[in-house]
Amino acid sequence: MIKAQTLKGFRDFLPAEAIKRQSAIWRIKEVFERFGFDPLETPALEYAETLLGKYGDEADKLLYLFEDRGGRKVGMRYDQTVPLSRVVAQYGSAGSPQVLPMPFKRYQIQPVWRAENTQKGRYREFLQCDIDTVGTDSPLADAEIIACTLTVFKSLGFTDSMMIINDRRLFDEIGLAKKEIIILDKLDKIGADAVAKELTKAGTKDPNGLLTLLKESMPTERLATIFAALEQQGYKNGRDFRFDPFLARGLEYYTSSIFELKLPSYPAGSVAGGGRYDKLIGQFSGRNLPAVGIAFGFDRLLEALEENKLLPPSKTTTQVLVTIFSPELLNNSLEIAATLRKNSINAEVFLQDSKLDKQLKYADRKGIPYVIIQGPDEAKRNVVKLKTMQTKEQEELTIDQLIEKLTKTS
Amino acid sequence: MIKAQTLKGFRDFLPAEAIKRQSAIWRIKEVFERFGFDPLETPALEYAETLLGKYGDEADKLLYLFEDRGGRKVGMRYDQTVPLSRVVAQYGSAGSPQVLPMPFKRYQIQPVWRAENTQKGRYREFLQCDIDTVGTDSPLADAEIIACTLTVFKSLGFTDSMMIINDRRLFDEIGLAKKEIIILDKLDKIGADAVAKELTKAGTKDPNGLLTLLKESMPTERLATIFAALEQQGYKNGRDFRFDPFLARGLEYYTSSIFELKLPSYPAGSVAGGGRYDKLIGQFSGRNLPAVGIAFGFDRLLEALEENKLLPPSKTTTQVLVTIFSPELLNNSLEIAATLRKNSINAEVFLQDSKLDKQLKYADRKGIPYVIIQGPDEAKRNVVKLKTMQTKEQEELTIDQLIEKLTKTS
Repeated sequence: MIKAQTLKGFRDFLPAEAIKRQSAIWRIKEVFERFGFDPLETPALEYAETLLGKYGDEADKLLYLFEDRGGRKVGMRYDQTVPLSRVVAQYGSAGSPQVLPMPFKRYQIQPVWRAENTQKGRYREFLQCDIDTVGTDSPLADAEIIACTLTVFKSLGFTDSMMIINDRRLFDEIGLAKKEIIILDKLDKIGADAVAKELTKAGTKDPNGLLTLLKESMPTERLATIFAALEQQGYKNGRDFRFDPFLARGLEYYTSSIFELKLPSYPAGSVAGGGRYDKLIGQFSGRNLPAVGIAFGFDRLLEALEENKLLPPSKTTTQVLVTIFSPELLNNSLEIAATLRKNSINAEVFLQDSKLDKQLKYADRKGIPYVIIQGPDEAKRNVVKLKTMQTKEQEELTIDQLIEKLTKTS
Repeated sequence: MIKAQTLKGFRDFLPAEAIKRQSAIWRIKEVFERFGFDPLETPALEYAETLLGKYGDEADKLLYLFEDRGGRKVGMRYDQTVPLSRVVAQYGSAGSPQVLPMPFKRYQIQPVWRAENTQKGRYREFLQCDIDTVGTDSPLADAEIIACTLTVFKSLGFTDSMMIINDRRLFDEIGLAKKEIIILDKLDKIGADAVAKELTKAGTKDPNGLLTLLKESMPTERLATIFAALEQQGYKNGRDFRFDPFLARGLEYYTSSIFELKLPSYPAGSVAGGGRYDKLIGQFSGRNLPAVGIAFGFDRLLEALEENKLLPPSKTTTQVLVTIFSPELLNNSLEIAATLRKNSINAEVFLQDSKLDKQLKYADRKGIPYVIIQGPDEAKRNVVKLKTMQTKEQEELTIDQLIEKLTKTS
C-alpha cells in the first residue's frame, strides 16, 4: 500500500476551497478583459537558459530545474513576466504569421513553482495573476495597469485598496546603489532605525540624511503624468493611490515606475506589485521593448477576501439534491433532475438506494442548500416537497413552481 | 542574447487561441456543475511513488520524474485519476476535518505532462477535463457520467455525439487474457484481419471464432441497467449511445463498464473516454472504493469544435477601441473609456500619441470590432463617431446611445 500524501510545500484544493478560488479568478478575469487585456498561456516548462539569471542569484536557487528525457535542461515556470518576454521576442517580429499587435496587452493566470523554504509558511506552487503591456513607454500604460488593478479590488468588494507608487529614477537621481535599494526595500518590515543601521554597514555615509532627502522628494515628472491620467479616470490621489518615495521593490529588472497594492484591512503585506521594466525583453529579442505590468499574489488576495468576508459561503455548486424515495420511484427522481438541469439548475440525484436519512445527511455534509422529496403520494399528485436545509422548512410545490423558486435563488 | 524558443513538445497559446480554449472550458464547467460535480485542484508535482506503476510499464516511461532540491523523488501530473485516488484515500477517512462527502463527485480541469514522442504529433503538455464519482458502485453513477458527457457535447453545439459502451466483465466471462484485450483495443485502427493475426501470434486458438463470439454478445445485466437509466433521462439507445462488444480501452485499471465518446463529424478518434475502476483507490487507502469517471481530451475536442465551426470567431475580448484624436483631447478619450467600462463594456484606449491611421491599424490587427473617434467638433457637441471595423460604416452617437448599442452587441 502506498501512503497517500501531498508533496511537501504543495496543496490540494478540495471543492469548498476550489470554488472560492474559481469565483475570485472569474471576477479578476472579468475586469482584466474590461480594460482590454487578452489571455495568454505559456507552458509549465521552459528551457533552463530562458529562466536562469533573470530574477537574481537568490531566485535562481529556487528554480525547479531538471534534465528531461531528451537530455534538455529545463525549468518550471517561476513567474509569468519572463515567459511573456520570451513570447514577445518570439512572436513579436514583423513577418511572423502570428505577429502580435503592439502594444501587446495580455493577462496570464497560471501556477508558478518555487522551491521556497516551507518553514516560512510559503508554498512551492501558487497561482499568479498578471497583466502587462508591452511595446509602449507611454505613462498612459502605467496608469492603465494601476487603474485596472484598483478596479479589480473594488470589484472584489474591497473598499480600502490603495496603490503606493514610486519611480526608480528617483533613486538614480539621488545616486542610490543597488545594494542600498535592496536595504531600503526592508523599511516596511524592519523600520527606519534598522534600515539606517544596515545602510551604514553597507557604506552609506549619511543614512539619516538620505532618508530625509527621500522623504522630501517630489514625484518625478513621469509620475505626475501618471497621476493626472488616474485622476482623469476618477481615481483620487490620497484615496486610491499615493506617492511613496520609500517604496523600493525587490526585483532587479524595474527601470522606472514601481507600485504595490496595500489593503489596510489586510496588514499582512501587499497583495499586488509591479512596475515598468524596459530592458528585460531586450535580453531575448536583442531590441529593447518597453513594458509595464503587475502581478497579483493570489494566496494573499484570497486570504484578504476571506478575512473581509467577501467570498461566497457555498461549499458546493449544487443547488438541489433530488432524493430517491424508493426503488419504484427512481424513474421519477431521474426525470425531475433532468427537468431541473434543462432549466439551468444545478441538480443531482442521490446515486444509491439508501434511507432518506442518509440522503439528507449527504446533502448536509456537501452543503447543498435544498433537497427534493417525492413519495408515492406526491408522485400521484405530480408535486414535490422542497426542503430548505438551513431552516428545515418544507413546502409542497408543482414542478413549475419548483423551477421558478430555484431559478430565483441561484 | 538568449534565443527565444518554446520548449520542444510544448505550446504557447496566444490570445486568439487562449480565448477559444477558455470559452470551451467555461461551457464544459457549466455542465459539470449542472450535474452536481464540484471542482478539485491537485498539485502539479506528486511523490514519484504515487504515480509509478499505476498506468502500466509503457506509461511509466513517459512520466516526468526528477529529484527536487530536498532530494525527494517527484513526478509531474500524468493524469487526474491517480491524484483523485490519492486525495480520496487521504481525506476520505472519517474523523478528518476535511472529510469528503461520499459519494464524492468532482471535476478537475488541469494540464498533464507526458514525455511523448513528438514526431507522432503529440504534445507533452495538454489539458484534461475529468469527472469522476467515487464511493458507489451503483450503475446510476455510470449512467450519470455518460449523461453528463453527452450533455456537454450537446451544449457545445455538436449534434452527432455518440457514446460507445462496453463492459470489461464481458471479457472476463469469455475468458479473454489481458494481452488479448490490448490487441482487441486496436480494432478501430488496424481492422479485424490484422487483429485476428495478432491474436493468433499471441496464442489465441480460434481468433475468428472469438471475434464472432464477441459480435454476438449481449449487454451485461449492469449495462442494461445503465441503458435504462439513460433512456429515463431522455437519451436514446442507437441515437445517443450504443453497446459495442469490441470496445476494449487501453488502461489497465478498468474493472467493468467502459465507454468512449465518438463524433462522426470528427473521425480522427474518440474525444472522451472512461469507465469504472473499482480497485485503483485501494492501492492508496487499503480499502477498495468503487469509482467511475471519464476524461475529455481537450485538444481533440477543440479541434472538433474548430472543424465544426462551433467556436467564437473573436480574436480579442475587447469590444471597442477609444482612439485619441490629439493630445488636447486625451482626457475626453480617457473619460469615454472609463464610462464604457463602468457600463460593463470591454474598452481600451490607444496608449500612445499616434496618427489615427496607426490606431485603426491596431484595432484591425487585434480584431477589435468597433472604434470610437471623437474630434474637436464631436467633443463640442458631446457625441462620438462609432466605426464598425468590418463594414467600415460610421455613425454618430451620444454616449447613452453608444452604451446601448455596445451593450446589445456584446
